[in-house]
Formats: sequence, C-alpha cells, structure tokens
Amino acid sequence: MHDFEVTVLGCGSATPSLLRNPSAQLLNAAGHFFLIDCGEGTQIQLRKNNIKIQRISHVFISHLHGDHYLGLLGLLQTMHLLGRKTKLTLVCPPELKDIIDLQNKHSQTTIVYEIEYIFTNPKQAEKVWEDDKIEVSTFPLRHRINTTGFLFKEKPHLKNIDKEKFKEFKISVSEINKLRLGLDALDERGNTVANAAITLPTHPQRSYAYCSDTNYYENVIEHVKEVDLLYHEATFLNDEGERAKKTFHSTAEQAATIASKAHAKQLLLGHFSARYGSTDGFITEAQPIFANTLVAQEGTTYKII
Amino acid sequence: MHDFEVTVLGCGSATPSLLRNPSAQLLNAAGHFFLIDCGEGTQIQLRKNNIKIQRISHVFISHLHGDHYLGLLGLLQTMHLLGRKTKLTLVCPPELKDIIDLQNKHSQTTIVYEIEYIFTNPKQAEKVWEDDKIEVSTFPLRHRINTTGFLFKEKPHLKNIDKEKFKEFKISVSEINKLRLGLDALDERGNTVANAAITLPTHPQRSYAYCSDTNYYENVIEHVKEVDLLYHEATFLNDEGERAKKTFHSTAEQAATIASKAHAKQLLLGHFSARYGSTDGFITEAQPIFANTLVAQEGTTYKII
Repeated sequence: MHDFEVTVLGCGSATPSLLRNPSAQLLNAAGHFFLIDCGEGTQIQLRKNNIKIQRISHVFISHLHGDHYLGLLGLLQTMHLLGRKTKLTLVCPPELKDIIDLQNKHSQTTIVYEIEYIFTNPKQAEKVWEDDKIEVSTFPLRHRINTTGFLFKEKPHLKNIDKEKFKEFKISVSEINKLRLGLDALDERGNTVANAAITLPTHPQRSYAYCSDTNYYENVIEHVKEVDLLYHEATFLNDEGERAKKTFHSTAEQAATIASKAHAKQLLLGHFSARYGSTDGFITEAQPIFANTLVAQEGTTYKII
Repeated sequence: MHDFEVTVLGCGSATPSLLRNPSAQLLNAAGHFFLIDCGEGTQIQLRKNNIKIQRISHVFISHLHGDHYLGLLGLLQTMHLLGRKTKLTLVCPPELKDIIDLQNKHSQTTIVYEIEYIFTNPKQAEKVWEDDKIEVSTFPLRHRINTTGFLFKEKPHLKNIDKEKFKEFKISVSEINKLRLGLDALDERGNTVANAAITLPTHPQRSYAYCSDTNYYENVIEHVKEVDLLYHEATFLNDEGERAKKTFHSTAEQAATIASKAHAKQLLLGHFSARYGSTDGFITEAQPIFANTLVAQEGTTYKII
C-alpha cells in the first residue's frame, strides 16, 4: 500500500504561542508531499520534523487569514534560495497570487522555479488535481472570509493477480491489464473468466479531509461522507459557544457532530484557541458524540487507514 | 541613567534555520521598546525572551528582503487580536504599506489601533523621529535593494544639581531649570553663577547604530562616527569574499574595518550565513582589525555604555 499519512506541524489558532504553532500539515499521499496551510514558522516546523522542503510538490491554502498562510512567502523564498528546479503547485484563493507577486516585486526576487497556480472556488465543490493514484477536491466551508476544505482520496488501486490461479486458467499476458483494472478476461479459447476468480481483493480507497476554518456547517457532511480521517477545526469548547458562533469557528461538540453525521471513521481535532492550555476538554466534549476522536499534537504523524 | 540596551532576537541571514532566526532586535531606549527588523518568527522570539509585545511603540524596517520583515504582518495582527489601543509607529520603506494594506484587505482585517507610517529615504540621511530623550535617524546602506541603517542617539541629559552647593549659593528655585539645561544661573543678588560650579557632571550621550544589510560601504562611516555600539552585518568570512561582493553583503573583516575607521567603541557582528555553524571564525577575522568585537547571540542583551 502507498504511504498515506499526515504530520501535524501546527494546530493552534490565530496567534503563534510557545505552546502551539499556527496551522500547517504535511500530507504524504502516495509519495506526494502535500503541504496543507502554512502559518508563520512552518519552515522551522518542517525542519524540526526532518521533512525535506524541496520534496513538497503542492501547497494547499484554505483561506487568507494570516495564521493559515503567513509562512508561505518565506517558504517560497527558501525554496528559491536553495535552488529549487522542480515546479511547485499552489492551490489557493486567487488573491494569494497578488500578495506573493507584490512581495516578490518589492524584494526584486524572480523565483527560479515554476509556480503553477490552481485557484480554489469558494462557491462549490471542485476537483482541483489528480494523478493516477490520488484525487484532490475542494468544498466550501463557512467562515468569515472565503474558505475551502480539501478532500484527498486514493483512486481505485490496480488489482493484483493471484499467481496460482493464473496458472490454472489459460490466459494470455495481454489480458492482465484488463484484470488489474477489475474487468473480466478471456482465456485462450475465448471463454470469459470472471475477474473475482483470478484476482486478489483490493485495499479500499482511503481518504483524508481537512476542514479549517469553519463554523458548524452541515453542507460539509456530503463532501466528507465516510472519510477515513476527518480533520475538523475545534477552536473552542462549548463554554465559548457564543464566541465560536460570532467568529465563525466550531466547538469540539460541533466537530464531533459533523464527524458522526458524515459517518467518518476517525476525527482529528485541531486549531485550538490559545486560551486552552490542555486539550483534555476537547476529548471529553467530543467523544460522547463521536467516540473515535483524537486531538492533534504537533510533530505527530497520523496514518490514514 | 536611562535603560539603553539591545536584545538580539535573530542574527541569521536569508533562511530561518534551527540554529538562528532571521533578523530582529529589541532596543530598549529610555523605556521605549523599538523593534528593529522583524523576520519570520519574531513574535515567538519576543515571547521566548519575555518581551511584552504591546510595549513595542515603534518598528524600524531596514529593507524589504523577506528575512527582515516577514514576521511583521503576524505581529501587527497579534497586536490587533489582543486589543491594542495605543498607536504603533512604523518606520519603513514606503512599499511596505502596500504589502500590509493588501494583506489586511484580503483577510478583511481592519486593524483596531492606529498605525503611523514614517517612510525612510534610501537616498540620504534623515532624522525620522525624536522625543526629549532619544533621536533616531536613518542613513543609506548599499545593498541589492533600497536599504537604510538606523542610528539611535540619546539627547543631552538634564544636569543634576549638587544639593550641597545649591545651599551655599542663594539661588531661587525658578533658576533650576536653566541649570539643568546646562546654562548659568543668577543668584538672588543678580550675580551670575557658573553652571559647572553648582551642577554634577552629566553622563555622555550614548548611541547605537544598526547596519544590515550592506556591502562594504565607506559612506556609512560618517553616520556612525564614535558610536558606542555598532551592529554591522557580517554575512560571510573572507573565504566567501567573492560571494559577499556579488550578493552585496559584508565579511567580518569589512565590518571591523568600518568600525575601526568610524572609531566606534564596540562592534557587534550578526546576520551570519547558515553555512557557518560556529561563529568563532568571525571573531578571529575581525579582532585583529577591531579588538572590541562581539558576535551576536540570540537571547542576549547588550548594554550600550
């Protein structure tokens, strides 16, 4: 199976603190290094976690609040200074390009590598990128400014042939590709051989969803239905429910409700307000509603299974 | 005497590393908290050094390379989120205002406190700010883009009266202000009393100069003449002299030469390239030319005496 795991680099909200960094995650999806959000200090967090900066192929920015993107320009410039040669793809709100261009203009920097922009659409769900193994789509969240969530989903795996059974049936090598794609094949006599009779069961297609920042928003549910791991912001606990509402953030209970209604397999909470030293309360509040809840810890890697 | 001391928050160049942060210093000048440059991560460095963010009254930005200002927007937003009420003065290149305005526009942030801009002039030395205790001026450096140095200088101190001698002379209280300003006074009979006969000697006016980034530039000398503490960038050692020239940076030897020719009292080197793990070589190279040389260490406070 491919690697499919996410390392949390920052799970604090709003202002950096000695306890937590602003939002950033590194998703390793089938060998692709996807950086999701890039708050101030992300470069240092990448180094601390021994993640090679130049291996990042894509950066996904959810929205233009500073705690989700202020580390990006420094990262782009570091990639430049280290002589990056490969293209970097930025999946982001269109306004971010203006912000990057203006700063590169005033520092008289001409980035030596190609930046490909793919602009997110805050109005509706869209597929933004794919290759033969992974597909990425965005969907609208509900925050104070345009914000999108991201869904990373494995494509159907090619099936493996059961070698013993392959010998029993007289099937030409050219039929193998059909079998790997899940189709039936023909034997040498022209008889149909059912795919299931000769292939091994495939692994299910795993998926990861990132929802930050948003208030409680039931439209999210359809986009993250049965996701294997749902990262959902929980800036506050219920004791600050009014503040959550006012600032378009979620409580742990609300995040758990979304996970439950979406039949997610596992929930990872993050984007904690600096007012909470310990994250114990987040577990206490979420688990009665959605048992399989974890709280994000910086430097921890969560396997998507 | 007033406080007059500088705490180095970042003394690395170009890219943040686990060893050093990008440029930032906190100068406490007679109770004013002046932040000089503000590389990425400065907020965290301020917190680590227990410096109260809201006490910063002025930020001075030397130039618009990322390692000198990318931490500023996050700092401004943190001051905003923490409900700052007092004005913040930004002394900076005019283009920085555009960068700040564009980002606040896209994050839909209306900063709750007043920001007063004072734009630096890269062409000639200028006084940019003063009060009754401190005067700040800028002067041109020579770098790849417009860059200014900063000179912070105490104003003449009010003289203290020698109380014993005051009793001997019959002088009215209204004459005291004249004496404190260094003028002679009149006694009750209308006779002149020489200032020196009745006042204590004053402390000299201390000064601090910040020169980063620049290549070897002799025009700097007149602006930092006899400064008490000169911070001068030394990105490289002589082994990288060609690279220093090409990138408009200085070597330790060049920084020491400026300090020597300016008859500075003390030299503090910083802005070290990440290629140098140890800073021992900087001392070895600078001290034969200028003996009173120190290398900057993050978290260390240097008293200006």
